[in-house]
Amino acid sequence: MEFDINSNISFIQERINDLEKITEKENPYTRLVFSKEFYDGRSWLRDQYTSLDLSISTDEVGNLIGLLKTNKKNKQLVIIGSHIDTVPSGGRYDGIAGVVSALCVINHIKKNDIDLPFNLAVYDYLGEELNDWGTSCIGSRGLAGVINEEILSRKNTAGLVLKEEIDKIGGNSKLLNKPLPVIKNILACLELHIEQGKVLEDRKIEIGVVRSIPSISRFSVTVKGQAGHSGTILMNQRSDALVTASEIISFVNKSALKLSQKSNQHFVATIGKINVHPNSAAIIPGFVEMTIDLRATSQNSKEEFLNILNKKISLLNDTSSCNVKIKDLAFAPYVEMDKDLIYLFQKSANSLGLSNTIMDSGAGHDTAQLSRVVPAGMIFIPCKDGLSHCPEEYAKVSDISKGTAVLWEMVQNLARKKIEADI
Amino acid sequence: MEFDINSNISFIQERINDLEKITEKENPYTRLVFSKEFYDGRSWLRDQYTSLDLSISTDEVGNLIGLLKTNKKNKQLVIIGSHIDTVPSGGRYDGIAGVVSALCVINHIKKNDIDLPFNLAVYDYLGEELNDWGTSCIGSRGLAGVINEEILSRKNTAGLVLKEEIDKIGGNSKLLNKPLPVIKNILACLELHIEQGKVLEDRKIEIGVVRSIPSISRFSVTVKGQAGHSGTILMNQRSDALVTASEIISFVNKSALKLSQKSNQHFVATIGKINVHPNSAAIIPGFVEMTIDLRATSQNSKEEFLNILNKKISLLNDTSSCNVKIKDLAFAPYVEMDKDLIYLFQKSANSLGLSNTIMDSGAGHDTAQLSRVVPAGMIFIPCKDGLSHCPEEYAKVSDISKGTAVLWEMVQNLARKKIEADI
Repeated sequence: MEFDINSNISFIQERINDLEKITEKENPYTRLVFSKEFYDGRSWLRDQYTSLDLSISTDEVGNLIGLLKTNKKNKQLVIIGSHIDTVPSGGRYDGIAGVVSALCVINHIKKNDIDLPFNLAVYDYLGEELNDWGTSCIGSRGLAGVINEEILSRKNTAGLVLKEEIDKIGGNSKLLNKPLPVIKNILACLELHIEQGKVLEDRKIEIGVVRSIPSISRFSVTVKGQAGHSGTILMNQRSDALVTASEIISFVNKSALKLSQKSNQHFVATIGKINVHPNSAAIIPGFVEMTIDLRATSQNSKEEFLNILNKKISLLNDTSSCNVKIKDLAFAPYVEMDKDLIYLFQKSANSLGLSNTIMDSGAGHDTAQLSRVVPAGMIFIPCKDGLSHCPEEYAKVSDISKGTAVLWEMVQNLARKKIEADI
Repeated sequence: MEFDINSNISFIQERINDLEKITEKENPYTRLVFSKEFYDGRSWLRDQYTSLDLSISTDEVGNLIGLLKTNKKNKQLVIIGSHIDTVPSGGRYDGIAGVVSALCVINHIKKNDIDLPFNLAVYDYLGEELNDWGTSCIGSRGLAGVINEEILSRKNTAGLVLKEEIDKIGGNSKLLNKPLPVIKNILACLELHIEQGKVLEDRKIEIGVVRSIPSISRFSVTVKGQAGHSGTILMNQRSDALVTASEIISFVNKSALKLSQKSNQHFVATIGKINVHPNSAAIIPGFVEMTIDLRATSQNSKEEFLNILNKKISLLNDTSSCNVKIKDLAFAPYVEMDKDLIYLFQKSANSLGLSNTIMDSGAGHDTAQLSRVVPAGMIFIPCKDGLSHCPEEYAKVSDISKGTAVLWEMVQNLARKKIEADI
């Protein structure tokens, strides 16, 4: 049954519009995992599942699932999933485009009364974005069995324990010490996502088929100085934690720039979050905590960076009057997508006449977690100016619809393969 | 009537202990102006005034006054005042020691049934510390008639308008366009304060008689970059507002250190407050706002500093992809204390056999504002390690009691002078 790219635009646009309105009002577009807005978004998604006549469930890690059951005697499962949570002041497409396109595929199947040879599920993976617990991809990590007790027991700044929040939303955090049982039935996990970079836009390509996702490492850097009165403590008597932190911020930026140019590979390092204590104009900062976010396709580049950073920190501890510490917060390894799925995605795009290219992802994704235990693959669609994780994030709905057509083509290709295999 | 330094220690200690408990519980010692804790502190102070049988009033700018009236036909007024508000995570002595010592002087007068030839008032000057409205010394500026409509109309981050808060606490902000009428009756404003520096402690001196207070200038620096995904925006494509802000933080520190050494005068510059937007680990910072706090006894040094800072900002605007702006937030001029009061403070300390020295203040004070329109003078008492504006701030109660004895001696000297003048 052919998927009409143009006639599905309004289905997609309406749902993007709906979710856009479910945000912290003063801080668009913000729907942080476990926030009131997130619960509201999930309630909206349940209504969507209901109107598509899907079986609704929440799994052990809190993923919200809408299941379309096959009439065949088959327990195998294809997942199309992404996430509806956002970063603070994030966008309207990151994650959301993937969930809405999954709904659109189901709608197409329902309208055309198609019976697939496997179960097909829409997944809203819980909390893909980095959150106040210092972790990301909660739902996909839990599904893949790579979330651990240390992470589950973390408290956020409001004192809430991650595993208690998972249980509140309908999960069962006691059962997260291994991959979830459903894993053994999964035939493929598919995801559509905006690129969040400029490659497709610059090269005017409609579909990016993802080959790999770089490793993501996060580190906490703390700088302990001595708070004091900004008027009375002389310049040469100070242990100003923010001044030392600034040296680190400059150093991280310069070193990452150098490495990214040298290796000609994907290498980025960012200090996006900084908390200064007590953060008052008339007080010398006594304590600073920052997060370094590091992404690399090359393990060598990563090691070289950490090497020079640790040397710099040793030097600061020897020469400044502040004490600097660095510790690991989170890590997601470099992963490659399933080769068969990469081939099938290309074949699907080609059969629709859509221009496409194989590419590496700059960002981490749920699919990276899932690819550690099941066949997983994903496609990118273009977005404006590479902007993402900010209110200006924008993707054309017609581009999302093209990607949705590829997803549907992909489901059909998997169905054909399944039927062939079953004969 | 002689003031017994030892027997007044418990009076002072009890009141320091009382105020110490009125704090944001999770963030000692915090009693921000207009906060619930501040209202609680004022309620405690009203009880103190009541138990000393003082007439209680709130003036037009919201200063809380406890008045001891003379039986003589005289409207002239001597004020002993300081403040009970604190900075975030501030201390137990800054301002508080001055208010408690004033109560102690009144208690001594009451116990000994002394009638003075002038009215004597305890003032809790409203909001001495720098606040979320970007101003300080609200009460003393208002009293001196040097607060303006622009400041009064400012909103804090919670959207509260300063003048509305002044009216809520009992003031009448419409009448703040000139010095308050009481000014014409003021004979002297006196203040006891902890030094907040290390001069007295290092030199083992009991009393510092303040000669001058440096100018204080505050500037807001904003850096506009472009928020974006920390994984997908390449290092050479970034407009990272925090990286540019870091250059400014380092530059301000280095330049101020150089100037302070060069001029051998009091010169300090601090960036104590920084807000990063959106402040999330996976997002390149798109916007940073910081406050520079600058204190100088030399106008030349201040001008030289602003000159090189403005050049640096121009350079950053030309060479970085961020846009940097600086604007004035607040200013308090360099002031000298009343020469007669300096002489009388020295005479008072000498007559009690307390070691003393003339010195400049590192910090700004209400007395600096008042000295612009009335005779004003202040003394410092030692504090531990020069620490202030932090929880570790500490002063010996015996040292506060010594300073209180000087205040009482000062009141007697003023009374003698007054009687002599009236004969």
